[in-house]
Amino acid sequence: MAAARLFRGVAVGLGAAAAAGGRRALGSAPPGVAAGRGVRRAALAAAAAGALGGLGLGLWRWQQAAMAVSEEEEEGEDELWQRFMAPPVSGLRELRRRRRELRSRMELLIMETQAEVCRALAALDPGAAFAVDTWERKEGGGGISCVLQDGEVFEKAGVNVSVVFGLLSEEAARQMRSRGKSLKAKDGKLPFCAMGVSSVIHPKNPHVPTMHFNYRYFEIEEADGTKQWWFGGGTDLTPTYLNEEDAIHFHKTLKEACDKHDLKLYPKYKKWCDDYFYIKHRGERRGIGGIFFDDVDSPSKEEVFQFVKSCAKAVVPCYIPIVKRHCHDSFTPEEKLWQQLRRGRYVEFNLVYDRGTKFGLLTPGSRIESILMSLPLTARWEYMHTPPESSKEAEILEVLRNPKDWVH
Amino acid sequence: MAAARLFRGVAVGLGAAAAAGGRRALGSAPPGVAAGRGVRRAALAAAAAGALGGLGLGLWRWQQAAMAVSEEEEEGEDELWQRFMAPPVSGLRELRRRRRELRSRMELLIMETQAEVCRALAALDPGAAFAVDTWERKEGGGGISCVLQDGEVFEKAGVNVSVVFGLLSEEAARQMRSRGKSLKAKDGKLPFCAMGVSSVIHPKNPHVPTMHFNYRYFEIEEADGTKQWWFGGGTDLTPTYLNEEDAIHFHKTLKEACDKHDLKLYPKYKKWCDDYFYIKHRGERRGIGGIFFDDVDSPSKEEVFQFVKSCAKAVVPCYIPIVKRHCHDSFTPEEKLWQQLRRGRYVEFNLVYDRGTKFGLLTPGSRIESILMSLPLTARWEYMHTPPESSKEAEILEVLRNPKDWVH
Repeated sequence: MAAARLFRGVAVGLGAAAAAGGRRALGSAPPGVAAGRGVRRAALAAAAAGALGGLGLGLWRWQQAAMAVSEEEEEGEDELWQRFMAPPVSGLRELRRRRRELRSRMELLIMETQAEVCRALAALDPGAAFAVDTWERKEGGGGISCVLQDGEVFEKAGVNVSVVFGLLSEEAARQMRSRGKSLKAKDGKLPFCAMGVSSVIHPKNPHVPTMHFNYRYFEIEEADGTKQWWFGGGTDLTPTYLNEEDAIHFHKTLKEACDKHDLKLYPKYKKWCDDYFYIKHRGERRGIGGIFFDDVDSPSKEEVFQFVKSCAKAVVPCYIPIVKRHCHDSFTPEEKLWQQLRRGRYVEFNLVYDRGTKFGLLTPGSRIESILMSLPLTARWEYMHTPPESSKEAEILEVLRNPKDWVH
Repeated sequence: MAAARLFRGVAVGLGAAAAAGGRRALGSAPPGVAAGRGVRRAALAAAAAGALGGLGLGLWRWQQAAMAVSEEEEEGEDELWQRFMAPPVSGLRELRRRRRELRSRMELLIMETQAEVCRALAALDPGAAFAVDTWERKEGGGGISCVLQDGEVFEKAGVNVSVVFGLLSEEAARQMRSRGKSLKAKDGKLPFCAMGVSSVIHPKNPHVPTMHFNYRYFEIEEADGTKQWWFGGGTDLTPTYLNEEDAIHFHKTLKEACDKHDLKLYPKYKKWCDDYFYIKHRGERRGIGGIFFDDVDSPSKEEVFQFVKSCAKAVVPCYIPIVKRHCHDSFTPEEKLWQQLRRGRYVEFNLVYDRGTKFGLLTPGSRIESILMSLPLTARWEYMHTPPESSKEAEILEVLRNPKDWVH
């Protein structure tokens, strides 16, 4: 416990579920796992010394965690759970007890997705390592933030999980549903549970695009005991320069994940993505899109979960081949400069428009570091910058102003 | 007219007055003055060639403008008006005709302030030059944006003037007054006039602080012909490192400007400044403050104008001595890095909280480049950055968290 630090707050992308956070001691977390700066420094130092490069790190950590947790909870770990970045928020025993419930299966999915993505990224950037911070929320739940900063390939890569629960006011519950359905509360309060995985990856090389994804699940119990539930999420790409082959690969992989469930999903969620990531004051989208959906509660809980699972499993095959293809591309100082200007636009979208970020920042007690993990390491704003006509910079701007269909 | 370009929109800091802009041809503007990129490039090239360094530039431009305008309007120019950066929005003849009216005197004050500040800055950065853009608003009025970018001393320095008028909806009028006084409109529309000068100066050297100021005036005519009017404004300092001598000089100069009018003003507006520039999600102020006020309409129009004039005249003596004192200080890469992290916080305040910026971005047709001129050239966000205890970085953070009284 000596190294354990206290955290409070909420992870990025959980929107209204990420209500006021509190502090608790990291009671069940072993030293060296659920810690803050202490662990981070240790991990980075070890990685620098070559003892723990990339792929092995998450596994190594989790083995230590699992041993410690199993000693404390008097349970063994199974193979699946060894692969996570830290112990799950709900605890091994609890997840095992209610393993057939959807919220347990969703918590496993977001933990698996976090670990899969972190491992895939770390394998491409062997000199760097993910810092793993766990934090708790006084009112219930907590999260795990994994951040790799200033690596060889990635400037800043964050993958967060959060699982929070407690009571919501009717007003807060209404704000959580993008379509604003009414909810009947007992004494003005509604028991809720919200969980999600959220990630933003900013690479160094201007020929490797930024990628963002987020998959989340909400449950609210009304006064008469009925449970409302819904899913939200999406995966989208923000290139500095347009590469049509990459754009097609990205959208095609997403389309395949959607098509397994319903042929109507990809076109609908592709458009929703273009509409959502719109920087209105610039008349540009943040990137070349992908898929985005919110407040999805049909046809059935099981079917939507299977769809979300397909999307989450598509993150690595969507993105990692693009990183591999371009992370050693040469680039000019002018290309780096254009990347920095586009990073400025990313900051504009996230701070001015993004619903999750705005809600998080305005919520007292939020875990600000997890919310603002989505901002790039560096960004630039030039007055009246306009790329020359027919340049590569003008080419991507054209696509950001008029989104294209990449697959048919 | 060949070089004249069309602009539309609104300058930073004019809040609700900066309603939807339009386009008009720059009919009364001479070629080479009221132009966009064309002039800018010409000016920068000339400055680079040493033909027009710093101090002379605004004057040179205005002489050309005055000649051209006087030819067109068949009027001579007087000495005062020669000193502006471009022809006033309301035109020479109109300003002369109603020279005793307060809005004419305020327009002269903001034009003078713009020119004074631009000249003082340009004198310190002789290798760079201000680009001067004029823009017009379809519904009435326009503005003049002066921006110096990537100089030796200043990373980005913008000084904007805007003068807009037309009809406001009751709702928009209500939003403009921070204290939300009710206004009686005829047919739901209120004739209004709003003008201001607004500036943000980001220097290169981390030992030279960023400075912001804004002085503005509003008039609204109610259904019965009564005119409501009020002033707003302020000047504040954002250092990367604390220098007590600078902080005292800055606040003392502002206090002297206020004290000439009423001894109660400085303490009241110093506190308002600390409260306004609060980055709530960080628990920090943006800088070490200064003065800030809004919606001021007493004791009398003349007295408030004289107070605002004293504040505007204090901008150069507040700030320029601090720039001179430190612009040749040596600094380390670590100090530059801390400056970049603080610039990130500046972006957070401006995009998340600043009323003028938010209103401008959400208003269709705003002149975005003038609004976002306030953002630094470069900024940085690191996950979980915390300066070591007792460091110079921790020293400024302490003051940003707990504002100090610098003068008594």
